[in-house]
Formats: sequence, structure tokens, C-alpha cells
Amino acid sequence: MKPKLADVAKEAGVSPTTVSRVINDHGYLSNATKDKVHAAMDKLNYQPNSLARSLHGKKTNLIGVIFPSITNPFYAELIQKVENQLFNHGYKIILCNSADNKEKERAYLRMLIANQVDGIIAGAHNLGIEEYQKIGLPIVSFDRQYTENIPIISSDNYAGGMLAAQELFDAGCRKIQFVGSGSRTANPTGRRLTGYRDKIKQLALEPHIFSVDFNDPPAVKLLGIKQLLKDDSLDGVVCSDDLTAILVMQAAQQVGLNIPTDLKVIGYDGTEFMRTYYPQLSTIVQPLNDLVALLIKTLFERIDQPDAKFANNHFVLPVEVKRAETTRK
Amino acid sequence: MKPKLADVAKEAGVSPTTVSRVINDHGYLSNATKDKVHAAMDKLNYQPNSLARSLHGKKTNLIGVIFPSITNPFYAELIQKVENQLFNHGYKIILCNSADNKEKERAYLRMLIANQVDGIIAGAHNLGIEEYQKIGLPIVSFDRQYTENIPIISSDNYAGGMLAAQELFDAGCRKIQFVGSGSRTANPTGRRLTGYRDKIKQLALEPHIFSVDFNDPPAVKLLGIKQLLKDDSLDGVVCSDDLTAILVMQAAQQVGLNIPTDLKVIGYDGTEFMRTYYPQLSTIVQPLNDLVALLIKTLFERIDQPDAKFANNHFVLPVEVKRAETTRK
Repeated sequence: MKPKLADVAKEAGVSPTTVSRVINDHGYLSNATKDKVHAAMDKLNYQPNSLARSLHGKKTNLIGVIFPSITNPFYAELIQKVENQLFNHGYKIILCNSADNKEKERAYLRMLIANQVDGIIAGAHNLGIEEYQKIGLPIVSFDRQYTENIPIISSDNYAGGMLAAQELFDAGCRKIQFVGSGSRTANPTGRRLTGYRDKIKQLALEPHIFSVDFNDPPAVKLLGIKQLLKDDSLDGVVCSDDLTAILVMQAAQQVGLNIPTDLKVIGYDGTEFMRTYYPQLSTIVQPLNDLVALLIKTLFERIDQPDAKFANNHFVLPVEVKRAETTRK
Repeated sequence: MKPKLADVAKEAGVSPTTVSRVINDHGYLSNATKDKVHAAMDKLNYQPNSLARSLHGKKTNLIGVIFPSITNPFYAELIQKVENQLFNHGYKIILCNSADNKEKERAYLRMLIANQVDGIIAGAHNLGIEEYQKIGLPIVSFDRQYTENIPIISSDNYAGGMLAAQELFDAGCRKIQFVGSGSRTANPTGRRLTGYRDKIKQLALEPHIFSVDFNDPPAVKLLGIKQLLKDDSLDGVVCSDDLTAILVMQAAQQVGLNIPTDLKVIGYDGTEFMRTYYPQLSTIVQPLNDLVALLIKTLFERIDQPDAKFANNHFVLPVEVKRAETTRK
């Protein structure tokens, strides 16, 4: 049976009014009281009813936005577009860079749950499914699998992985390496690696996979990639993202390999930033405008109909190849 | 005489309680009422008293952050550091990318004034002094001059302009061009150009200034820079920022100039992103960690003592040269 507000009150040893005030962050409350109520809510897995919340007139027109880091141009462009489109609908965003910090992500979720936002757009890496299951708020995910009920918007990572390998094959490569952070099983981005594997198999080639940890500093990644390029006689590299592709280009230069003569490279993401400031890089372009429009449309549906069931919970948008200098034949 | 809440009520033809509710965004209010009260506040230049606000228990632990664009790596890193440090103090940020959109910046200010944040960190370009004079909130500025009372945190743009010109001179350049958006008179960044001018004069050289509009698309800037490099026999370029420096490098390649043999280039900002993904670029490094620490310290002083007078309202931190491939002799 679903726990009720009265159950939380009983568990916490406070009045139902106090629980309501904690949920709606209304009036003076001691930290001790707040902690007791939150602990009781956690224990019972109590989810504040969105109708009750809106009856309090507490619509904030704030949306929580949780992503790893705005210093990654892909997230910067995505979040900037989210902020622009939400602004046109009268919403503002609370930004959380969760980086590799589990505690920070958890603390943000808790603050956002305390009724400060009307919904959440999340694309962070760290937390497991449990934490997101407890959120009594409309939430949509970019490219991350949280729970069954949380809709995922992503681009076609599998097709992207295949397209990248095919592009290098078409450019004449026969020993094609995958470099990147593709091993996160719970994430749709892991499907880039699967796409690469399947295409390589189709082409009757050998897969070669070099894993780099998404959270390693770039200088550490660079060292590993240089070692890889020294040891091997690769002729093509599929990268899990454009920043990794830049490191591959730097490593190639440092070990004396010419791109594209000795080694061809293709990135992933294709932000406006990269296309402007690294125009020579071939890449798989994610449809950022469409992704953002769909994230917001889906979030608004959930905000408007908090108790509705939606049949389709995974939306996949197509990607395309941007061919440039680094995959020139 | 300073206008009082009662004066606003009289001007708007509503009760003082209604004015208080508009200021504190409390309870149901029609848009017509809100507009009337805001108009009266604007007319009388009324600034809500922060003590009255805090008596309402409306401390939100939110800080408004208004900058041109997080797709610029400099602002992305600055805002990420601001968000991280504020998080450690229990604050969250509401992010506004004002881009070149005056109306958006104005709309955000109005929303933030409606008591949704405890303070503002602003580094946006568009609005004049008037709009910022009306803000009854603690505010600190990064690198922009708003009003006398709003403290400015910046790095030493004048010294930076001088250092950049000196670096090119030391590398052997004698026809040193300035390329960038240096003509904004109200902005401390304009002092980069002044520093360049003064250093060039000291060195008994001729100044050469090519203005690009900060808000022009990069492709448009690139066209202009290519034309410049074709027409002239420059040997060094001081850029107002690192992104412009990348465009100069692209333009040089396209017109067949080798860097650093034919042309030397120095950028400005020196973000971690640029130092990682464009390590060959010499640049003037702004001390981002110190700037952010000082922005937050100054903001907290204003939040804690809203009615205090502070003697020093302009804080300037030192910059340094990062010498790399593009200014190699």
C-alpha cells in the first residue's frame, strides 16, 4: 500500500501539518524537525502528491537541471538551449554540475525534492536507480537509464557507433580502434560501443577497444592514448566523444603520426563549438535542437499530467555523419 | 528622501500588504496588480529593504547568475566554479544566459527582484546602468561597470593587454595587430585594448586595431580576419580572447601563413579547457579560482550587511602569461 502523509507524521513523531510544511518548505522549521521528517519519508519511500503540492500554490516555475559539467561543450550547448526554451515558457533553471560527485548529486536531489522546482531534467552519471525512484517530481532523463517510469530522450547511439566505424572503413581503414568510455552498462552511450562492435563484425574486421575513464583528467587520458598509438599499427580511431578525439589528434602529433595520412579519426557529438573551433574533425552529430525540444515537451507533459501513464518512455532521435579533414581518403 | 513601502502603495492605489505580497511573491496576485505595483516601484525607484525581506523568512538560498553564454568556455568554467563554491555554502544557482538579448536580461532581473534569490552575480553585457540601479538585492559584478554601488571583480585587463603586446615584441614581432571586441567603453575588458595601445607606444611601434563584434557569428568574424591577414604584412596578433585567437589561427592556415614562423598569436583568458585542448596557444591567463573566490566573498559580505557602506568597490587580480608554441621565436 502507498504510504500516506499521516504515516510519515506518525513515523516522524510530528503532526501532519508539520510534514506538509516540510514538504512545501513553508514557515520556520528547525533542522532537527526537517531531518526527522525526511528520514521518515525515506524510510517509507513516501512521494509527495503533486496535486497536494499544487493546491498549496507552490508552483515555482523553476526546473532543476542536473548534468555532469558545463565545461564539456556538449552539455554547455544542451543546457543553454534548455535554458533558452524554458525561458520562453516562463521557467528558469537551477543548475547542478554533478561532476563525479555522488554526494553532491544526492544533496541536490534532496533540495530539489523539498519542493523548490516543478520538475527535473537529468543527465548525470553517478547515482543508482534507488535515489531517482524516490523523487516525487516530474523528471525526464537525457541519455541515462534511471527507472522504468522516467522517460529517456537520447539520440541513436547504436546507429552512431555503426556510422562511425563505417565512415573509417569507407575512408580505407582496416584496423579500427574504439577509444572512449563505452563500458557504462546502464547508459545509452554504451550503445555507441555496441554499434561499433556490430559494424566491425559485419565488416569482418577485428574489434579493438581502449577504455578511458570519463572522469580521468585529460592529461591522464592523453598518456594512455599515446601509449596505445605507439604500440599499435592502427589506421583508424572511433572516439566516444569529440574531446577524446582531440586528445587522439594531440597524441598522434606527439608520436609523429600524420592525420589523415597515417591515421584517421572520427569523434562524436558534433556541437556547434567543435564544428566552429575544430572544423577539421569528422564526427557523429547529435541533433541538439530536436533533443532539447523533445526533453522539454516530455517534461511539460509530465508536469501537466503528473498521474498519467505514458506508453512510450524511450525516444530515440537520428544522428548524422559530418565528414571533414580527419577522415579524408 | 528614500521612498517607503507606503509611498509605493499610494502610488499604485493598493494596500501596503499587497505591495509586500508582490515584493515577497506571496499568495495569489493578479498580473494587473503585480504590474501596477512594479510600475509604482519603478517610478519611485523603490528598493525593498532586505531586513523586511528576511523578516518574512523568505531567504531562498538561491543566487541569480547572469552571464552572456555558457557555450563560451571562459564563462562555463567561471560559472561551474561559482556553482561548486556556492553549493559548499548551501546555495544553489539560477542560471541566465543573457546572450545578446536585452529583453531577456531585463526579464530575468525582474524575476530575480521578485524575491526569488538572495543575491546576484552578473557579468552580462547588454543593459545600461538604470536597470541595475533599481535592484534591491545584493549584487556583485564580474568585469562590468554597472553602478557606483555595485562592486566589480576583475583581473588586470590593462596589464594583460600590455603583457600580450610585450610577449609578441619579445618574440620578435614588430607589426603587432590587435584583434577583438575592445571598444566597449563601459567594460573593464576595454582596458585590454588600452594596455595594448600604451605598450605599443612605449615600444615606439604603430598601433593596428581590428574590431570584431563580440556577438557576430564566428564565421563572420573569420571572414573579416582572413581579409585582414591577406591585406597586411603583420607578424603578430594580440587577441581579446582565446576563441578569437583560434579564428586567427584558422584564418592564417587558410591564407597560407605558418604559425609561429610567419605570424605569432597570443590569446586571452587561458581557461583549463583551452590549455588542455589548444595547448599550442600562448595566452594571458586570468586567475579564475581567485576571481570566483572573491566574487563569492564579496557577495556574502553584501548579503550579510545589506546596508553597510564598503570603501573599496573595485578589486583587480593579477594575470600571467602562458607562453606556448604560437609565440615561439
